[in-house]
Amino acid sequence: MTEIHTEPRRRGRPPKRQADAFDTRDALVRCGMATLTEKGFSATGIDEVLKKVGVPKGSFYHYFESKEAFGHAAIAAYAAYFARKLDRWLLAADRPALLRIADFVDDAAAGIARHDFRRGCLIGNLGQEMSALPESYRDRLEAVFADWQARLARCLRAAQAEGALAPEIDCEHWAAFFWVGWEGAVLRARLKRSVEPLHCFADGFFTALGR
Amino acid sequence: MTEIHTEPRRRGRPPKRQADAFDTRDALVRCGMATLTEKGFSATGIDEVLKKVGVPKGSFYHYFESKEAFGHAAIAAYAAYFARKLDRWLLAADRPALLRIADFVDDAAAGIARHDFRRGCLIGNLGQEMSALPESYRDRLEAVFADWQARLARCLRAAQAEGALAPEIDCEHWAAFFWVGWEGAVLRARLKRSVEPLHCFADGFFTALGR
Repeated sequence: MTEIHTEPRRRGRPPKRQADAFDTRDALVRCGMATLTEKGFSATGIDEVLKKVGVPKGSFYHYFESKEAFGHAAIAAYAAYFARKLDRWLLAADRPALLRIADFVDDAAAGIARHDFRRGCLIGNLGQEMSALPESYRDRLEAVFADWQARLARCLRAAQAEGALAPEIDCEHWAAFFWVGWEGAVLRARLKRSVEPLHCFADGFFTALGR
Repeated sequence: MTEIHTEPRRRGRPPKRQADAFDTRDALVRCGMATLTEKGFSATGIDEVLKKVGVPKGSFYHYFESKEAFGHAAIAAYAAYFARKLDRWLLAADRPALLRIADFVDDAAAGIARHDFRRGCLIGNLGQEMSALPESYRDRLEAVFADWQARLARCLRAAQAEGALAPEIDCEHWAAFFWVGWEGAVLRARLKRSVEPLHCFADGFFTALGR
């Protein structure tokens, strides 16, 4: 924590300058991640993020080359956060593989409701806005979807190995299908302020798989 | 057409003042509709729309009370346009009902490719941005989805009447599922610059209906 917080000053030796800068950069990325998850890129002003974190207006370019670079940092942080979340559910070895996917859906629904339907998916938000965004984001966002697809396909193959899914099911195809539709479900859940679209989509997904 | 266009002056009697104002308002709504379908609300400046149509900056409020009111007009115009498009495909009495849905998907894919993946769905764009939009848009956007759902459910019931769909299929439920996932497919098609996600989603939809 640095001077930008209003928390009581920490005891002991003050942090080194470099660690300070790192913490501030990290706080900006985390705040940017939350804001982009809520409002997307176009509606997010850098000033707003700086104000929230308590960093003076002039010093943004001390931490990031541009708003574009800041967006890349937020995408990377969100991708790392979401990969951890997926692993937590999809690699739960004590659960049947298809139930792990249902667990992820339930957790996502609880999370979106907990944030009062304000926060969605950073990757979906930026994907939707792509026409108005730096072209350099396109491949990065697609790479994140490809990563999620690979993680889900692995879980579907685990379900096949358990005998819970027919062997002729194309796991890559259905993992692709899931993320294509899931972003629509997140969009609609926020618009409707209800988790119902998430469950509607997941139920249809499991029906299609032959459950 | 009015003085705002650079086309050659029309022959004959000049249009009346009221018709003039109506044409200009209509041109602004049509341009707003295209721009919102491409970039969403937050990234669209009123100045940009006025410039494209050739209306002086100061006169926006002559036509609309606010940017919010302008958005409502664009939503209404898009809803009317899309309902006509849906009817064109889903009410084609000479085609089996399930093929009519596939025809709509093919037409949407051709349309999105023709616009070089820049244009998506105005309702999806604004739905995604809802956290940053006037709260008055929420019910309006949901009402448009409800209208599309009713039109699709009617077509699914026609498929049931033809014997192409099992009688126990809940047509309202699957029509809801379609629009939930479809918006995700449009988002992803634009990001990927490929119609593949649209077909991926539609194929999954038809597979689920057949289980």
